[in-house]
Amino acid sequence: MVVLAPWRSLITHALYRNRSLPSARYLQLATLGLDGFPRNRTVVFRGFREDTNQLQMVTDNRSEKYQQILKQPVGEICWYFPKTREQFRLRGQLLLVSDHTTDSNLSKARCLAWQELSDAARIQFAWPIPKQPLSKDKNAFKPLYISQDRPLTNFTLVLLDPIEVDHLELRGEPQNRYLYTLNESLNWNCQQVNP
Amino acid sequence: MVVLAPWRSLITHALYRNRSLPSARYLQLATLGLDGFPRNRTVVFRGFREDTNQLQMVTDNRSEKYQQILKQPVGEICWYFPKTREQFRLRGQLLLVSDHTTDSNLSKARCLAWQELSDAARIQFAWPIPKQPLSKDKNAFKPLYISQDRPLTNFTLVLLDPIEVDHLELRGEPQNRYLYTLNESLNWNCQQVNP
Repeated sequence: MVVLAPWRSLITHALYRNRSLPSARYLQLATLGLDGFPRNRTVVFRGFREDTNQLQMVTDNRSEKYQQILKQPVGEICWYFPKTREQFRLRGQLLLVSDHTTDSNLSKARCLAWQELSDAARIQFAWPIPKQPLSKDKNAFKPLYISQDRPLTNFTLVLLDPIEVDHLELRGEPQNRYLYTLNESLNWNCQQVNP
Repeated sequence: MVVLAPWRSLITHALYRNRSLPSARYLQLATLGLDGFPRNRTVVFRGFREDTNQLQMVTDNRSEKYQQILKQPVGEICWYFPKTREQFRLRGQLLLVSDHTTDSNLSKARCLAWQELSDAARIQFAWPIPKQPLSKDKNAFKPLYISQDRPLTNFTLVLLDPIEVDHLELRGEPQNRYLYTLNESLNWNCQQVNP
């Protein structure tokens, strides 16, 4: 059982205070392209993995970000909350939990993430390959049946395990900025820095 | 005089339709850290540079992103518009326009960007070095006088010159996704792709 990191309650609080905005659960995940240059896209926050400080997101193993993370499992999340005017930057290792993952706890987390998706989100995993020329077959986007229990094989859970969290509150006078870093004994240090 | 790229009017339209949200002008810029791993932060869109397709942002030459862009002038912007539920990803070369820049057009654009900042934004360039331990001197955040005309020397204009733009409309049925790529003759191709 991992001790909750000190920045966890801040994120919970931000999610609560921004709960009227559906897009407050959207964050931007930067990864390395196969060319070594940065890539950036919006993904949905799917909660923390039980008993960990890992942020959960999901992806399709046919997407570019899957290949990127497979090659370089590092990333930085940028998460801006409009209502409270604060930003979290979370940097760390990324972990792909796929159909091939044998660890039973991770597999369980993947199944749970699938079950908690909306029907509209689940159906996308049965769509044609992302970023290929638009499929001419209209029925390709209308799959017949998808199990709510058992994930499709291309469904992948993505975990970010932060080692540094940079919290900026624009509302301060001046702005407040706090830097959380994980030290070698796996404890979190916090330091207030210039914005 | 550069021909306006076909995705320009889409961004103008998105900015207009999301104009009630101040945060619609905020976007996330991914760069490469000095360690070669991705970094990601929110920046403010400062308009397009006149007669170009370059997106303008500003930074402080004492910030980490300045050093990162100096070393690797490449990046990807992720820009999500909550009201219209659409995302633009813009990938390309980054250009720093600093106090040392000799090109007169670029220098002019930098001065203009400074003049168009709010007082609250300008004052930040007179604050202590970003991300250093919080300055104990409270007056350090209350500079006496800052010219509205002449930029402080650490003020830097950042330009992104896109070579690929990925436009996703979540509202479609299924979602609509268009890929714009700049070809060798500097024309933009557009292809509709699977979301």
